[in-house]
Amino acid sequence: MRAEIISIGTELLLGQVDNTNSSFLSRELASLGVEIYHHVTVGDNPERLIEAVKQAESRVDLIVLSGGLGPTEDDITKKTLAEYLGVDLILHEETEDKIITYHKNADFEMPENNQLQALILADSTPLTNDTGLAVGMMLTNDRHHYVLLPGPPDELEPMVENYLKKELVKHILEEQVLVSRVLRFFGLTEAQLAQKISPLVKKQSNPTIAVYTNDGEITVRLTAKSKNEDEGNKLIDEVEKEVMSYLSDYFFGYGEKRLAEVIKDLLMEKELTITAAESLTGGAFLSTLTSGLSAGSILEGGLVTYSSDKKNKVLKVTKETIDKYGVVSGECAIEMAEKSRKLFGADIGVGLTGVAGPSSLENQIPGTVWVGIAYKDKQSFSKHFHFGYKRNKNRRLAVLNALELVRRTLKELPIENTQFYGEDKQ
Amino acid sequence: MRAEIISIGTELLLGQVDNTNSSFLSRELASLGVEIYHHVTVGDNPERLIEAVKQAESRVDLIVLSGGLGPTEDDITKKTLAEYLGVDLILHEETEDKIITYHKNADFEMPENNQLQALILADSTPLTNDTGLAVGMMLTNDRHHYVLLPGPPDELEPMVENYLKKELVKHILEEQVLVSRVLRFFGLTEAQLAQKISPLVKKQSNPTIAVYTNDGEITVRLTAKSKNEDEGNKLIDEVEKEVMSYLSDYFFGYGEKRLAEVIKDLLMEKELTITAAESLTGGAFLSTLTSGLSAGSILEGGLVTYSSDKKNKVLKVTKETIDKYGVVSGECAIEMAEKSRKLFGADIGVGLTGVAGPSSLENQIPGTVWVGIAYKDKQSFSKHFHFGYKRNKNRRLAVLNALELVRRTLKELPIENTQFYGEDKQ
Repeated sequence: MRAEIISIGTELLLGQVDNTNSSFLSRELASLGVEIYHHVTVGDNPERLIEAVKQAESRVDLIVLSGGLGPTEDDITKKTLAEYLGVDLILHEETEDKIITYHKNADFEMPENNQLQALILADSTPLTNDTGLAVGMMLTNDRHHYVLLPGPPDELEPMVENYLKKELVKHILEEQVLVSRVLRFFGLTEAQLAQKISPLVKKQSNPTIAVYTNDGEITVRLTAKSKNEDEGNKLIDEVEKEVMSYLSDYFFGYGEKRLAEVIKDLLMEKELTITAAESLTGGAFLSTLTSGLSAGSILEGGLVTYSSDKKNKVLKVTKETIDKYGVVSGECAIEMAEKSRKLFGADIGVGLTGVAGPSSLENQIPGTVWVGIAYKDKQSFSKHFHFGYKRNKNRRLAVLNALELVRRTLKELPIENTQFYGEDKQ
Repeated sequence: MRAEIISIGTELLLGQVDNTNSSFLSRELASLGVEIYHHVTVGDNPERLIEAVKQAESRVDLIVLSGGLGPTEDDITKKTLAEYLGVDLILHEETEDKIITYHKNADFEMPENNQLQALILADSTPLTNDTGLAVGMMLTNDRHHYVLLPGPPDELEPMVENYLKKELVKHILEEQVLVSRVLRFFGLTEAQLAQKISPLVKKQSNPTIAVYTNDGEITVRLTAKSKNEDEGNKLIDEVEKEVMSYLSDYFFGYGEKRLAEVIKDLLMEKELTITAAESLTGGAFLSTLTSGLSAGSILEGGLVTYSSDKKNKVLKVTKETIDKYGVVSGECAIEMAEKSRKLFGADIGVGLTGVAGPSSLENQIPGTVWVGIAYKDKQSFSKHFHFGYKRNKNRRLAVLNALELVRRTLKELPIENTQFYGEDKQ
């Protein structure tokens, strides 16, 4: 099946917001095997919206519209479609109740317009909005499927995940079910990963294999169509085994969790605590661990020691180490890890030191990074990296690779002769 | 003048990358007074590209294409346009030299294809690529202007800023010049800001007033068309004065610099150093200050004390304060600020404590935040905030408002009875 995505909103044409709905919808539809050849964006203008819908009708079966379901005068999508398709707008009572309850609880008066968000096209299937008020819908007539979704991504995304996909599977795949599994990898670039599994991707059509990257962490999604869930899972098991035969060294978990979250889970599971002393990353390592889910049980605190003086005076890295090896050294990284571990009474201490850039430090060029790890009574160690990027990317790569070092340490995985992500080819 | 933006790339239709080029180009073109009614995305497919170009030709004067200028077989834009418009592709020698030099310096062999990136449409104006190899171009025939830009945003954006806009001004505005000025604000929502200046926006056409928001920081861009730069600046001065009559309380600087960068500049200018003790923000405040430009001269280090125990043992917040007032208190925030200032020998210390969420702490609900400020021999103080959002947004708002508190302290601006950003209406 082919689909076209039409985004509606003058704010998109003014560039006031990025259009992330089109890419999100494309990924989700691709995972269902739906092909997309066009994205189109128009403003809050009925003529241009109808023109875009007509054109889409001439090209595809499934037309997905996002935006323009809100309560203001600019929100023209439902009214325009109703007139164009010659169907009535009717009240969706469940949504109306929800809107009334919402305003009662919020203790401020409901603007009259707000009830507009409870109108749906007659004979359409309503799509619940778990995170907002405007109801979505899917309408099928004798020639096309029309899907209307709210514009805000935090409303659209759960609606698609939780409701639209099920509807589409019912309509598009008929008797079939769709099973998918997400594998997560770190340590190589998207191109390197794609190359490793390219023979597999080429010969594979069910399950499909889709690869995405987000800031160094790579997602591989396997999606199988099958008669039932058991069979789907069996198909996925087989392909997963093949994928893992190429990539198991880089695998860090199932599902959408970020590397930092996986490490937090690992620490919690093992009832361990972590701390860090950060120089070039300036708080970014600790901040990454404490964002997302609560971190109270795995982290009591940590330290940023930017200057040599404070590495010595506050963290107690010895003057000898600093004078003999410099602060950009494995020795300093190890001592930062050990001293922070002691200061915060943690099971594992991480020291991050190096040169973020743009200037050099101690005659070492930007991108030079040392990470030290001190873990319980194990031998402390350091690892040297060189990332040849700009300041903020060097910092981000230092944080990600330090997290990966923690993961490998806790899992007792090899560290020497292992490929790490973002390093210069040398 | 009207324009249409056509993005080319199968990766966009698969949702593998977000289309940020369309929004960036829209903003830039809007600032020139160019109107945009459609964004269209097609894959690496010559037929569909030509179809999209034909449709755009029927609707607008200026057609801006992004993507497909690289060296691989997928990169079809130039070849397709050349055939469609009946013009030759010729070698742009400057770009060819650059490609050869690049590969010589990089010390790896140049793939033959790479030279394709030096081809331009005959009679087009080349647009220099400061951050990559593929040259851009602008071609004007008797009916339309065609602009071809590379797909990667880090190549497209400088090309537009540094070269395309000048070309467009020459072609579109003829004898005129375009002067623009960027004002930056923090402390109110985009809607609140827009409402305050709406009478001004309504009556104004030259200069234009455009409002954008980025994570709580608001940009107002004034753009004037005029005969010469002096006159343009005069027009902008007048409108700026009017804008500031509504908004001066929230103004933090000119240009694109983030709030954190402005505060770093301010600290540098005054030769002051800063430190922080962070609880709920877990390193995000320090990380924000140390990202971007170098921070070595204004920051020697800081501390994350997540647990009460480490607030006491490492930071030396007294047991009495913690027992009497709790860690979620103004008293604790002040003591964190003062003790961190002492520990790191800084001029200004910032203490951040509170409840990020999702759980409550000390019977205080998520979003409760206290920021303490200790500055030289001035009386220390704290400010209470309540942000009713999710964990990560509560943390981000705490960081931004702490930065704003530092700015107000250093500038001796009022803090009581001042509106801060992101607080619950209460």
